[in-house]
Amino acid sequence: MSLNLAIIGPGLVGSEFISQVAKTPYIKLIAIANSTRMLLHQTGTSATTWKADLTASQTATDLKALIDHAAARQPCVVVDCTSSEAVATSYPEWLDKGLHVVTPNKKAFSGDLGLWKKITENKKSLVYHESTVGAGLPILSTLKDLVETGDEIVRIEGIFSGTLSYIFNNFSSTAGSSGQFSKTVTVAKELGYTEPDPRDDLNGMDVARKVVILGRVAGIDLDLSTLPVENIVPEALRGVPTADEFMSKLPTFDDHFEQLNQAALKENSVLRYVGLVDPNGNSSVKLMKYPASHPFASLKGSDNIIAFTTKRFPNPLIVQGAGAGAAVTAFGMFADVLKIARILGLAK
Amino acid sequence: MSLNLAIIGPGLVGSEFISQVAKTPYIKLIAIANSTRMLLHQTGTSATTWKADLTASQTATDLKALIDHAAARQPCVVVDCTSSEAVATSYPEWLDKGLHVVTPNKKAFSGDLGLWKKITENKKSLVYHESTVGAGLPILSTLKDLVETGDEIVRIEGIFSGTLSYIFNNFSSTAGSSGQFSKTVTVAKELGYTEPDPRDDLNGMDVARKVVILGRVAGIDLDLSTLPVENIVPEALRGVPTADEFMSKLPTFDDHFEQLNQAALKENSVLRYVGLVDPNGNSSVKLMKYPASHPFASLKGSDNIIAFTTKRFPNPLIVQGAGAGAAVTAFGMFADVLKIARILGLAK
Repeated sequence: MSLNLAIIGPGLVGSEFISQVAKTPYIKLIAIANSTRMLLHQTGTSATTWKADLTASQTATDLKALIDHAAARQPCVVVDCTSSEAVATSYPEWLDKGLHVVTPNKKAFSGDLGLWKKITENKKSLVYHESTVGAGLPILSTLKDLVETGDEIVRIEGIFSGTLSYIFNNFSSTAGSSGQFSKTVTVAKELGYTEPDPRDDLNGMDVARKVVILGRVAGIDLDLSTLPVENIVPEALRGVPTADEFMSKLPTFDDHFEQLNQAALKENSVLRYVGLVDPNGNSSVKLMKYPASHPFASLKGSDNIIAFTTKRFPNPLIVQGAGAGAAVTAFGMFADVLKIARILGLAK
Repeated sequence: MSLNLAIIGPGLVGSEFISQVAKTPYIKLIAIANSTRMLLHQTGTSATTWKADLTASQTATDLKALIDHAAARQPCVVVDCTSSEAVATSYPEWLDKGLHVVTPNKKAFSGDLGLWKKITENKKSLVYHESTVGAGLPILSTLKDLVETGDEIVRIEGIFSGTLSYIFNNFSSTAGSSGQFSKTVTVAKELGYTEPDPRDDLNGMDVARKVVILGRVAGIDLDLSTLPVENIVPEALRGVPTADEFMSKLPTFDDHFEQLNQAALKENSVLRYVGLVDPNGNSSVKLMKYPASHPFASLKGSDNIIAFTTKRFPNPLIVQGAGAGAAVTAFGMFADVLKIARILGLAK
């Protein structure tokens, strides 16, 4: 028996995912759709020529038709590589048809609480989304194991944005101040680490989504609309119309960030932008200070880090590493597909 | 349907395991055996009275009878909580009968290579042994995911002994020398962190077994008899007959360890006792120096830490936390049982 995959939105991550899974003998790509065209195959399209085939396809994308095609070819995993809320909203319908879902799309798990409940309450199908938090790092699988084996979560604390990790690891170190905040943001932008508009990183919403996901997996009904999130974009710059204008005005606020940095340094601490899940109701996303000896203080590059403090792990269980990038995001998705394959008896 | 468990060797870890799994509705304890007595139940013994019941049992332990009982009540997981090589040697026979195995016993996975191959080549049954390396830390599951998704292992490096972690974290820190080596070992012994004879930790064989297991899961046929292992017990003390005599003579070698420590400090580094898996044939277990900025240098307490450097994670994926103790070892075993339950369709 083979495991069929229907892939929606094969961009950078989706293409890497396809090339990673291509060699698995029992995996067949029976559908691939981008925003305009789609390929529907009876028994599996070629993993080497799919890009050209998709470009040449005469079939306009029709997600309903794709899902019908997939539902007729079970077992099948729909791999959602979009970041679309509209696509995410369809998961319950897919699950009802017996389709499984693997995705790095955060929308279904951090958006409407009703959608989350519909997805998790389904008894029929499997949904794995390891790559929604820390890409392929074993974060959600570890949390699920802790929760399902009856451990008590005391707190979950982490640096979940590669962008903000890079910015603060470079801007704030106990080795002393390393230049202006605006310059660090500029370098991060030039290296391609930020969103086209860095305010989309600095506003904390991406971290907030990850905290909501972790909280919900831990059994706490967090909601984006009520989670306190510290937006570190200076208030005066939130309304400026373009990213360029924002970047050109950011140096005006270097003193503000330098003061925060110096205040941390005075306590032999550093600044880190952190998401926190607290079962006692104080979950939050904010800029925090950590002493030099703390594992968060010695973080390097754009790594993510997460610390699970639980009843069984009073000294936290820590996972650290690249939390973004196509190769590691696709790895997390592939590992999820393998879990489904094992449960379906297709792999060991 | 229920998942039956047959438990062999319910000591500290096994008792904790039973109390952790007790609340799972679909799990039934159908057999428990210690070295002298056993309890065989048709439908599940009580998780609250099993200790008294076992003490009162009139049935002498007979592993063959226990396995026959288990084989007649499938699906069943045999949970080997012993550290016995003889018990481990029986796994292939159990697997042939359709029984699954979960265990923290390292013997089957670090001993005879033929036994390892027999176990991994079985197609019928499931074998999980997360707790053989780093207890419940997600180490083997992560390595398995990396390997099975086609990542390339560049190196695996870690501190795998809670005892040696504690000793060197305390003896060697960039904050400066913190006293004699023999004193650190004495404190570790008094805290119950060492084996009754601390030479059983200092000889590196426990770390070596973990390196062999990691290597084999990574696809390298490591063998205890050929792996270079640095025994840090001074040669003159290896033959002294008792642990007490060893401890009383250890201070004679404080200068030796202090010189190693000072040499590391001169390079702003610390000493750590490390296991290394190297696909290029240079796997080893030895005392190494790490610069102050390395994650191994800031390790605290008796934590384990492991760094997977791979093609996809050129900056390593790191897992850190308690790698010993009944609660976390039982957690790793319970998580393994849950994986089996999912594959058998008993849990989601």
